[in-house]
Amino acid sequence: MLAARLVAAGEPLRVEEVPVPEPGPGEALVRVHACGLCGTDLHLAVDGDIPVERTPITLGHEAAGVVVAVGRDGDRDAEGGRVALFPAASCGRCRFCLAGREALCDSAKVYGMARDGALAEYVAVPTRSLLPLPDGVPFDVGAIVTDGVATPFHALRSRGRLQAGESVGIFGCGGLGTHAIALARLIGAAPIVAVDVDARARERALELGADAAIDPGGADVAGAVRAAAGGGLDLALELVGRPETVEGAIRCLGKRGRAVVVGVGPARASLPPLVAFVGREQAVLGSFGADRGDSADLYALIAAGRLDLGGSISARYPLAEADAALRHLARDRGRVVRIVVETGAET
Amino acid sequence: MLAARLVAAGEPLRVEEVPVPEPGPGEALVRVHACGLCGTDLHLAVDGDIPVERTPITLGHEAAGVVVAVGRDGDRDAEGGRVALFPAASCGRCRFCLAGREALCDSAKVYGMARDGALAEYVAVPTRSLLPLPDGVPFDVGAIVTDGVATPFHALRSRGRLQAGESVGIFGCGGLGTHAIALARLIGAAPIVAVDVDARARERALELGADAAIDPGGADVAGAVRAAAGGGLDLALELVGRPETVEGAIRCLGKRGRAVVVGVGPARASLPPLVAFVGREQAVLGSFGADRGDSADLYALIAAGRLDLGGSISARYPLAEADAALRHLARDRGRVVRIVVETGAET
Amino acid sequence: MLAARLVAAGEPLRVEEVPVPEPGPGEALVRVHACGLCGTDLHLAVDGDIPVERTPITLGHEAAGVVVAVGRDGDRDAEGGRVALFPAASCGRCRFCLAGREALCDSAKVYGMARDGALAEYVAVPTRSLLPLPDGVPFDVGAIVTDGVATPFHALRSRGRLQAGESVGIFGCGGLGTHAIALARLIGAAPIVAVDVDARARERALELGADAAIDPGGADVAGAVRAAAGGGLDLALELVGRPETVEGAIRCLGKRGRAVVVGVGPARASLPPLVAFVGREQAVLGSFGADRGDSADLYALIAAGRLDLGGSISARYPLAEADAALRHLARDRGRVVRIVVETGAET
Amino acid sequence: MLAARLVAAGEPLRVEEVPVPEPGPGEALVRVHACGLCGTDLHLAVDGDIPVERTPITLGHEAAGVVVAVGRDGDRDAEGGRVALFPAASCGRCRFCLAGREALCDSAKVYGMARDGALAEYVAVPTRSLLPLPDGVPFDVGAIVTDGVATPFHALRSRGRLQAGESVGIFGCGGLGTHAIALARLIGAAPIVAVDVDARARERALELGADAAIDPGGADVAGAVRAAAGGGLDLALELVGRPETVEGAIRCLGKRGRAVVVGVGPARASLPPLVAFVGREQAVLGSFGADRGDSADLYALIAAGRLDLGGSISARYPLAEADAALRHLARDRGRVVRIVVETGAET
Repeated sequence: MLAARLVAAGEPLRVEEVPVPEPGPGEALVRVHACGLCGTDLHLAVDGDIPVERTPITLGHEAAGVVVAVGRDGDRDAEGGRVALFPAASCGRCRFCLAGREALCDSAKVYGMARDGALAEYVAVPTRSLLPLPDGVPFDVGAIVTDGVATPFHALRSRGRLQAGESVGIFGCGGLGTHAIALARLIGAAPIVAVDVDARARERALELGADAAIDPGGADVAGAVRAAAGGGLDLALELVGRPETVEGAIRCLGKRGRAVVVGVGPARASLPPLVAFVGREQAVLGSFGADRGDSADLYALIAAGRLDLGGSISARYPLAEADAALRHLARDRGRVVRIVVETGAET
Repeated sequence: MLAARLVAAGEPLRVEEVPVPEPGPGEALVRVHACGLCGTDLHLAVDGDIPVERTPITLGHEAAGVVVAVGRDGDRDAEGGRVALFPAASCGRCRFCLAGREALCDSAKVYGMARDGALAEYVAVPTRSLLPLPDGVPFDVGAIVTDGVATPFHALRSRGRLQAGESVGIFGCGGLGTHAIALARLIGAAPIVAVDVDARARERALELGADAAIDPGGADVAGAVRAAAGGGLDLALELVGRPETVEGAIRCLGKRGRAVVVGVGPARASLPPLVAFVGREQAVLGSFGADRGDSADLYALIAAGRLDLGGSISARYPLAEADAALRHLARDRGRVVRIVVETGAET
Repeated sequence: MLAARLVAAGEPLRVEEVPVPEPGPGEALVRVHACGLCGTDLHLAVDGDIPVERTPITLGHEAAGVVVAVGRDGDRDAEGGRVALFPAASCGRCRFCLAGREALCDSAKVYGMARDGALAEYVAVPTRSLLPLPDGVPFDVGAIVTDGVATPFHALRSRGRLQAGESVGIFGCGGLGTHAIALARLIGAAPIVAVDVDARARERALELGADAAIDPGGADVAGAVRAAAGGGLDLALELVGRPETVEGAIRCLGKRGRAVVVGVGPARASLPPLVAFVGREQAVLGSFGADRGDSADLYALIAAGRLDLGGSISARYPLAEADAALRHLARDRGRVVRIVVETGAET
Repeated sequence: MLAARLVAAGEPLRVEEVPVPEPGPGEALVRVHACGLCGTDLHLAVDGDIPVERTPITLGHEAAGVVVAVGRDGDRDAEGGRVALFPAASCGRCRFCLAGREALCDSAKVYGMARDGALAEYVAVPTRSLLPLPDGVPFDVGAIVTDGVATPFHALRSRGRLQAGESVGIFGCGGLGTHAIALARLIGAAPIVAVDVDARARERALELGADAAIDPGGADVAGAVRAAAGGGLDLALELVGRPETVEGAIRCLGKRGRAVVVGVGPARASLPPLVAFVGREQAVLGSFGADRGDSADLYALIAAGRLDLGGSISARYPLAEADAALRHLARDRGRVVRIVVETGAET
């Protein structure tokens, strides 16, 4: 089969013939239909500032397809099922897995990073990774939901407990941020204030339903956000992973406000002076990935016509051009929402 | 001033001249602009199955207007302010008031029931009853929010903790139910299944965004609701206050489902057989009125353009025709959403 | 091996030689050290009002022991581990399992009811059923925690969200109720009011830390409970499963009070008149079984010396006398806390 | 009357005759029986790093006594009542007051800081400040609960949502920390790990029920805490208000752990590298003061015999020796739990 392999960060992906993987006991073989690319892939394959476990490795952790076989002792009823993939193979045994928080699994192996991923015609995964994909949700949309949409949904709904009528700021309006704006609308938050350095990203944010879009390069950003929100924010969602953005997000919070941080990076952000942070009962919450239930609920919302992700797929590439897809994302990071690689499977 | 007075249940309201009330210490005098009528008023003034504390009494507990004077030691800055009224005068001293749950106040005096209400040109209220009304919200909408919209919002959001992506059934699609459908959409619930005996109410429910509308007179109502919802409901909201509706709502729940009951009446509903209720970890939750924060958030949502209640006001009457307004509501209960009485104040 | 087999409800258990079960793929073979008997066993084996899936069947769903073998493809590292058993074999695939709520598994098979249980020298179980048992917790205590202690813990802590400083009533002070009193103390609830028809059960409740013990046969039970609690209860825990107890428990609630129902039975309880139930914002919550995390936290509490269950084991019987153990429980239901059968394994 | 007045930070308190204050409308005059001193008083009166609104000012924000008069239009029924004082006069009108979160009041005036406090024979307070004090709770204990006990209770129970069976670390075992240990026991947390530089404070922590006590001056503090807790902490409570303590507390957290910060100071703490903080879904939560309900529940727990604060009062001084009391606290900060000034009122 064809697979897009990362040989070394900074070098082109190598699309080459490799053997179709054999599903082990408790595993399933999935014919991939669509696989999204995301910012993490740039860290792995272009910047090289997040290491992969071994090279070459097949990239891709945001995928959907059809189960074509199951390993020994597996559930044959699963065959033929439309599925998306949880972005990491979780162990199913640690206390986080057993409590339904697989994103925090003590020994998760992210696809395309710690084991071969889904930027290929086939991928073998433990059956725990399978997320049933309803008929009403196309493969490409199903693929990007698992990370690019479920991650901000988890951050806003589960971790940040965003309520209808609360104000929210979205700091960073790339792929995740664009979806965060749509999801904040869906949840009934208001006002929604978008913050991004890129003028086109701000424009898109306003089109998608943000009530205001602020350039963080301005003089009094917190003042501008507060003016737009009618006061300090109830929730600020940080998607960039840089100390100055985290600190800027916290500065926009009102009393009892909470900053939910999704962006990752090696640096450390500072809290406000303790007397202010404590006196205002503010909070900073890390939010990592999403739960299986987040994706399931998103699929239900898409099927019910409540969430339209049709506009999220900025470009499509065939598997053979996986490297071009990655270059496109690298060139336009922050401008594209999601780029999807289609593997040529007949739908 | 003119006031619409209830003399005896079943008799016409008497619109007559009475003295403008004098605000006591800690009270404010409000020039009423609009006052809604609701199902409770029918219980008080037509059916007589909920008693008032004394007669004659000025009806009306769903009002908005302008503060024109404050009592001795009062805050003169409040004068001139646009306000809506919390539907009851709360004591401000009991543990529920002090915890921000005034609807549960140990000695609440509902306007138009336990003290003179707002179906009049002026009403005197403790300053605790004042809810600031933003400029962007008209008086008539501000009035109906305090009870007809805030009550289902409290039931869904605060009491039922409805989450985006959960399924919900609305049992009873009159005034509260109509708003419940709009609010369930706002919160991102899906699917939304409306249940009402009245064909026109079901039609309106579909127009407002319900995904399905079921006639509870049918053969297998629970089956029909489950089919429409794709399984047992996550949340069922009961707005009728009759045992059979409560029991029907519970029957539609899935595992971990919760029935939130807002409808009141003298009768008792039965739980399912305990083995089923316990084995499915279901819940039944009473929900009474709303908190001040529920109305404040609704005003913010209206001002932000997220919630359009323009269609909720089915008819308007001048104060002099308050009795005709009440007859209209009595005649068409379940068909009208909200009837508002306007008191002739210049806006 | 020896196993205590239920042949027909009402007939003596037959302790007989059967083959040691073979663990299938994904299963483990456990050498049972201790197995508790509980009220459910009386329903299955004595009263016959809860059916078993087939006869003969080995009884027992509350057990602890040591893993002695794993099936094909299983994790050999598990061998030799001290474990307790989750009371049912869950599927691991339904949305409840995947969310960590295995007690609600769509196709759970309770040991001793839907598949052979642990009242035997050995039991084969899916590895999902294994709960690691810390060294500091003896097998007999580890066994009874999984159901007799974890069930009221789940009801109070997870489902009822009992807080330190809240008042609580325990309705039914047999095995579960006795533990509920100890757990309510542990959580910091006060006052704790025990309600039981049996004078000795009330006495034991007071010894264990209840602040008052009320006889429900009295004239004004709700009045007596309220007097003892200094007002309506914040939480009432029902463990009997009879309509009159559920209704009595609800009658003792204060405003915002919640009744958590654990007791199961075929009958239906009535809610209070809706106007009262809604006006007081009360709640009735079913609570079923417990989560894996409930047992894990209980083991940590026992190991830390916070919870002493030494007094909970009222009697011990060897496996050969399993039927006598069951007769003892049947005779003294409500008087004994827990009866444990020891299978003669060397600890 | 006598009052202990702060003239300038760093100078002795001046105990002098001043007029008995006159309660205004909506105010009550309280005969003070006991007033605690706390670390904040040292900031105000000794270190001078937190400014007071004016000098001279009567110190004291942790008090209990008896209502002896009410102002015009006040509730005469309040006279004669035993009360404690909420530590600040809240406005009663802002959204935080109206939601029951008076500690966050937009215009709170802390006693002894922004208005005359209770280190005097009498104090005039808005009736909102009155907390009913049950007969079973002595004045001195009632006084220290309002801040020294309610603050850590709020932090652990309400803000940190500490659950029975969770592990907790207490960073700083002075007055608040000592109570935090007792409260963590009360809530059922385990293990409880105390961290303090002072050997005697660590010793006292162990006497009060901590499972381990760690010296933060050691080499691998986080390692020692984790070893004592059997893994990363579920909750870390910081009571010192210094960046290194906050950062140390966060380092001890496990996945999903939360650090609750109560300590205040001018400096800023750093979060861990974002990739770690986010990847572990950790949280940092400011917690400020307490709610009225926190104190009410504590009084109920004391009255029920669940919480014994008898050992918390390290020394007592008459009002005339208020300055000596303050010097004692300054000298032994971290060693004393609470020092109480008694005003000579006949109990």
